[in-house]
Amino acid sequence: MKLHDYLPSQNAYKVRLLLHHLGISYETVPVGIFEGAGQTEAFRAKNPTGAVPVLELDDGRCLPESNAILMYLGEGTRYVPADAWQRAQVLRWMFFEEDQVQNGIASLRHWTLTGKLARRSREAIEGKRALGRKALAVLDGWLSAREFLVDTYTIADMSLYAYVGFADEAGLPLESYPHVVAWIARIRAQPGFLATVYPYAIDPFSGNELP
Amino acid sequence: MKLHDYLPSQNAYKVRLLLHHLGISYETVPVGIFEGAGQTEAFRAKNPTGAVPVLELDDGRCLPESNAILMYLGEGTRYVPADAWQRAQVLRWMFFEEDQVQNGIASLRHWTLTGKLARRSREAIEGKRALGRKALAVLDGWLSAREFLVDTYTIADMSLYAYVGFADEAGLPLESYPHVVAWIARIRAQPGFLATVYPYAIDPFSGNELP
Repeated sequence: MKLHDYLPSQNAYKVRLLLHHLGISYETVPVGIFEGAGQTEAFRAKNPTGAVPVLELDDGRCLPESNAILMYLGEGTRYVPADAWQRAQVLRWMFFEEDQVQNGIASLRHWTLTGKLARRSREAIEGKRALGRKALAVLDGWLSAREFLVDTYTIADMSLYAYVGFADEAGLPLESYPHVVAWIARIRAQPGFLATVYPYAIDPFSGNELP
Repeated sequence: MKLHDYLPSQNAYKVRLLLHHLGISYETVPVGIFEGAGQTEAFRAKNPTGAVPVLELDDGRCLPESNAILMYLGEGTRYVPADAWQRAQVLRWMFFEEDQVQNGIASLRHWTLTGKLARRSREAIEGKRALGRKALAVLDGWLSAREFLVDTYTIADMSLYAYVGFADEAGLPLESYPHVVAWIARIRAQPGFLATVYPYAIDPFSGNELP
């Protein structure tokens, strides 16, 4: 299978992380999102929103949306519970991620790393910061009594970690959220964990490797 | 089972619609979201984000997030495909809904119906309108070749319909999106369809029935 990928994308990273845990080999197709490659007709035939990641099967069928890909690849493995109720709880946290984290922390981090922050109004920035802080407070409370979001380490943890683990890069320091910090450490200590390469090795503007 | 519900919430409506299709009886627990009832300690123990809907089982276990509830209730029924790939496509559209529709059309409609629109900047409003129009264009293109989002009528259609079907109330007229309009008509013609009661019978400010 192929993964249409872009290294600076933490949504694509989620899928890379699960594939690494599962030991699945795949072909990477780089899509230069910041250079507009997501908006070509060829790519939009794979995903009409123009976003990565997209999983492409050998017969050409395509699946966009990182969280849907995590569930597709994860079902039947140790990273997705077999029990229907527990699986629903995994989905519940991934839907929370898609709504509350993508539009707060993830969006704010994107603005920060691409220099768009300076062109945004204080109202817009403060709105996203408030959404980000609310999401972190919800997670901190939930994780105060739990090791992972749903009993054991699942795709829900991978999904939330992708942006929450880098909230400081969105201007939201994590020190007020000790249970989130401890959970991040537990995730990074998982066997088969894959560290994100970004922003440590890649320039977000050019997509080039940094020295 | 109980559904913690609020009549003006189209997220809660999604669940009501599926329960109606499935003929499942349940107890409604009204939560006065606009009056702050989502922020009480008792309710936040059920859902730390303070939002409806929440599905509560007889043993007290709770499941928040409308799309997770749809999948939990829908699995094994005609409204969720048995095939893993098709199920992943259903999820793909529900994750699209959670990210692109909740934060565009749904948010804009909330501002419009609650009078908050007048207090928002043009930048904020235009940003949400652009997101709304992009989501509608993606859906219109996708539905130009299909009757439903994924082969047959599924929970993905119910999820997207809840806000897309009322985009005009968010200031986004649907006449430029004829395939979306035709899809809405197909959904409303489904056996067991349940029309939303809001905003036709309920005042969004007071939650009271209108004459």
